[in-house]
Amino acid sequence: MDGITFDHVGIAVESLEKALAFYQGVLGLKLEETEVVAGQGVKVAKLHTGKTTIELLEPLGPDSPVAKFIEKRGEGIHHICFEVPDALAVVAKGKEKGFDPVSEGLKPGASGRQVAFLNPKSTFKVMIELSQGPADAGKKK
Amino acid sequence: MDGITFDHVGIAVESLEKALAFYQGVLGLKLEETEVVAGQGVKVAKLHTGKTTIELLEPLGPDSPVAKFIEKRGEGIHHICFEVPDALAVVAKGKEKGFDPVSEGLKPGASGRQVAFLNPKSTFKVMIELSQGPADAGKKK
Repeated sequence: MDGITFDHVGIAVESLEKALAFYQGVLGLKLEETEVVAGQGVKVAKLHTGKTTIELLEPLGPDSPVAKFIEKRGEGIHHICFEVPDALAVVAKGKEKGFDPVSEGLKPGASGRQVAFLNPKSTFKVMIELSQGPADAGKKK
Repeated sequence: MDGITFDHVGIAVESLEKALAFYQGVLGLKLEETEVVAGQGVKVAKLHTGKTTIELLEPLGPDSPVAKFIEKRGEGIHHICFEVPDALAVVAKGKEKGFDPVSEGLKPGASGRQVAFLNPKSTFKVMIELSQGPADAGKKK
């Protein structure tokens, strides 16, 4: 797949404030912005480090997927995200080889991008996010 | 902390071969090299994507930390690694604020670097690796 780049690590946390005390206060990462992504039920704090972003994900309510992840497994790394030119093309290639998406089609993600997730049951227990968007959406300044 | 950059995601897998069928075969990531890191008890497959590396970690034997991780939690993301100029300085700053290392001092990591790990019990269930090395060790070409 041409043009695939690692975009971010998504980390499920109970409290952005407590987690930022570590990621900002100890590691010294720069908080770029916080964004509410209603469609995913999360408040996201984006921390830049080189070309990669750490996204801390605090659930907006008990029904959000991230809240359910924390309830079931505790806090921790929720997913890794790759930016690709055509997420559904990667999904289709994965399906041919037995790697299944969580659901069909694309959904709205952070920064105005469209995303698909692969089911961690097929991808060795790693939730893979595939993100595509307009050329200028979500790019690091 | 000046100069901190995201270096890699370490993913525990039972079989490099099976995992590479996805990371190479579907995502199209480039396998840079494989390396046995005896001190950590793992065989590492390094896949480049932009400025970040995905490290697939296959345990060398049942007593390796990664084997124990898989036995306890199953396959999945094992740690995230930041490259820093002085890992013990970050560890010391963390300790002041209640974020503890897994053990004292530095240990040999991949690519000739020296590493320290923070205890995921204190860092919101995320194993954080801090890596330092000679200026030319482990740099992406």
